[in-house]
Amino acid sequence: MLLKNDYKKIEKIIGNNNILTSKEECYCYSTDSSNMQNAGKVPEAVVFVKNIEEIQNIMKYAYDNGIPIVSRGAGTNMVGSCVCANGGIVLNFSKMNKILEIDSVNMTATVQPGVVLGDLKSETEKLGLLFPPDPSNYRVSTVGGAIAQSSSGAMAFKYGTTKDYVLSLTVVTSDGRIMKLGADTIKDSVGYHLAQLMVGSEGTLAVIAEATLKLIPKPEAHRVVAAYFDEIDNCVESVSNIISKQIFPAAIDFMDKNSIATTEEFVKCGLNTQKEGLLLVELDGFESSMEYQINKTKAALKESGASEIRVSESEEDYNDIWQARRVSFAAATRLAPDVLSDDIIVPRKNFSKMVKKCKEIANKYNLKMCLVAHAGDGNIHPQIALNIEDEDEFRKYTDAKSEMYEYAISLNGTISAEHGVGAEKKNYASKIIDKNALEYMKMIKKVFDPKNILNPNKII
Amino acid sequence: MLLKNDYKKIEKIIGNNNILTSKEECYCYSTDSSNMQNAGKVPEAVVFVKNIEEIQNIMKYAYDNGIPIVSRGAGTNMVGSCVCANGGIVLNFSKMNKILEIDSVNMTATVQPGVVLGDLKSETEKLGLLFPPDPSNYRVSTVGGAIAQSSSGAMAFKYGTTKDYVLSLTVVTSDGRIMKLGADTIKDSVGYHLAQLMVGSEGTLAVIAEATLKLIPKPEAHRVVAAYFDEIDNCVESVSNIISKQIFPAAIDFMDKNSIATTEEFVKCGLNTQKEGLLLVELDGFESSMEYQINKTKAALKESGASEIRVSESEEDYNDIWQARRVSFAAATRLAPDVLSDDIIVPRKNFSKMVKKCKEIANKYNLKMCLVAHAGDGNIHPQIALNIEDEDEFRKYTDAKSEMYEYAISLNGTISAEHGVGAEKKNYASKIIDKNALEYMKMIKKVFDPKNILNPNKII
Repeated sequence: MLLKNDYKKIEKIIGNNNILTSKEECYCYSTDSSNMQNAGKVPEAVVFVKNIEEIQNIMKYAYDNGIPIVSRGAGTNMVGSCVCANGGIVLNFSKMNKILEIDSVNMTATVQPGVVLGDLKSETEKLGLLFPPDPSNYRVSTVGGAIAQSSSGAMAFKYGTTKDYVLSLTVVTSDGRIMKLGADTIKDSVGYHLAQLMVGSEGTLAVIAEATLKLIPKPEAHRVVAAYFDEIDNCVESVSNIISKQIFPAAIDFMDKNSIATTEEFVKCGLNTQKEGLLLVELDGFESSMEYQINKTKAALKESGASEIRVSESEEDYNDIWQARRVSFAAATRLAPDVLSDDIIVPRKNFSKMVKKCKEIANKYNLKMCLVAHAGDGNIHPQIALNIEDEDEFRKYTDAKSEMYEYAISLNGTISAEHGVGAEKKNYASKIIDKNALEYMKMIKKVFDPKNILNPNKII
Repeated sequence: MLLKNDYKKIEKIIGNNNILTSKEECYCYSTDSSNMQNAGKVPEAVVFVKNIEEIQNIMKYAYDNGIPIVSRGAGTNMVGSCVCANGGIVLNFSKMNKILEIDSVNMTATVQPGVVLGDLKSETEKLGLLFPPDPSNYRVSTVGGAIAQSSSGAMAFKYGTTKDYVLSLTVVTSDGRIMKLGADTIKDSVGYHLAQLMVGSEGTLAVIAEATLKLIPKPEAHRVVAAYFDEIDNCVESVSNIISKQIFPAAIDFMDKNSIATTEEFVKCGLNTQKEGLLLVELDGFESSMEYQINKTKAALKESGASEIRVSESEEDYNDIWQARRVSFAAATRLAPDVLSDDIIVPRKNFSKMVKKCKEIANKYNLKMCLVAHAGDGNIHPQIALNIEDEDEFRKYTDAKSEMYEYAISLNGTISAEHGVGAEKKNYASKIIDKNALEYMKMIKKVFDPKNILNPNKII
């Protein structure tokens, strides 16, 4: 527990306008987008770091005094990664939100961790470049958070995940040393890939203070093809069918019947609520290839039994079509006081089985579920609407979730594709990670954080 | 040192047709493609493992008896990664060369480590899929080696490196436990990314026994555009110029005047030996976009002062043009008894400076150098032809190399992009890796290999 003297010392490091200490203010940082109100305690202080030296000084103080440190970007993670398990200090990165450099020749960007992903994306796009990772919250979530959670989004199907774009990281160790991991060059094979080890480590191994990221040239054109299906099996078959025609969509997203209906109710965008599934296929590349790609994709969809195929005809139309998928989560929040979005992934050949099982389980427990997915990746987000204060309903939800996880594992899948583990999936993760690997993970945690002050009680 | 009893025990594990013990036979495994004859000792035994249980049993025996284990694929690495620093056993993977599964729906391949990269590439291509990593030795080098060395090749410019395609690894630990790292799904954010930590660890942390790799749809068409330049500066400028037109070539390779002349002498393929540089730009994608891409690329090249632009007109023509670049190393071997190919990378804006400096340094030391490069990545391979048994010349080479490395570092580059560190660059690596990061690397090595039996004295 922080004592009066601690507050004084921390304030001296950080300046008195950069610390919140009142219970009321700190309360705002006691949860994140996971709705895990009960998992976290109210932080004892929220500190707004402005540069790496401040992070370093805070870490030195925390290390010497055994104070837990929880790094926090926009707090948008879904698994309780930035709730304080044991009190301590929240490091808030909202004042470290500068894009330090976009090097358009080398196609790299160097940023502070608090940069909002959407800002990075739009600044790079102005230069004809692209930072592909696009978690659905990218307009608010931060680069530091995306690296910590190993997050991705719809475009991961073609462009990979955040890890594929991290070239180097400057981090502060638990005992307050600064170190640079990786190189600012496009390739690097000097020593162990510690920067990659940091990706997805959710602030449990070190504090990310700066990142150099790889960019790619922005494709000049895109279209979205939307298609309805009466059978989920056909929907999945169509994905393989598209690929077999050597079309490589940027994204292949999916909405189930409930999600379509709930979204239509919310935004009245003319969705067909009678169908089992809607597939959204993003095609990108050269304008000169668009007609060809569209025709091949439409043919594949039709061969697999799709109906009502719609192709975006303008940028406005493109945004309208994608809007349905983008607001699906917001729409689901109208069904009940809370919505918990999960994150299961299976090999794509098992996608259809997994979707059906999720529906079956939701029905069994009488839970309202809208299901969306990155179908190309086999990555399913069941969005379960409930009242988490209703103990009975919450128990049902927990049981349903366990059954879904078990089934995913039985299909050679896993329980987190892009959300991370945090506090919420920690117990499940410990069960499914190879037991020898788990032992090594614990040893690695100990190497980097011998006093267990970096985001304690997360992941493992 | 292995005793008579050790040989008996190992033979019992592996079967008597799967072990080499005579000095003559073992001598063949005392070096690799690094020409570091003096760095390694002759292995005391070469063991041909056939399955994971055999690896496990060998590792248990090695752990109990403190015997060094050096994993070896095709021995094509350029940095002395699989020479035996202290004797011990070479694990030879040539009998673990099966492609276990190509799952064309999930777009993954599961392979044993001894699979030749070229075999994996051709088998996946038959299914319309692509495994992009293409080190220039891919027709002989193995998947296990590519993972161990974090290798890549020309296509890394668009498609990334080996690390971007490793989904899961089954490894054997130094004490003989089997563990599965990562998941077979396209995305995974459960626990620390230990599979990524293994990539580039050169057999110093565990023995790779199986890998599940990501595949992508194979682009339906490709062309190569070749262009000559009178000035290296213009050559580099043209790369940025191509990108600024939103063209994303699969590869942008470079040959300098010496390399052009040496190659022309070797294969008589009609290269213009009067020019300072030759740029090879690989365009891929849909046939319907080819004309557009070619025109944009030609325009960019012309604007930057290129002359004699040639575009491949058939598959035969395509292979002919690339052949020049592919045989450049073989051509250089005609200049002297040995050729040592290095692997420097700098941010692309510094590419031209680095190339000029390499030439200046080679001239200063009177060394014959052909320089090829993956210009898009800023990755330079100076190929220095010399007689490594000529002590004076070898000293000059070593001094020249140090100067090149120092200059690369001063340009924010690094000393290995895709070859790894091995024994050869170990001392340099220790100097340039962040000193705090180096400490953590040493601790990680200790966690995974407490008895220092896994490829000892490599990397750090």
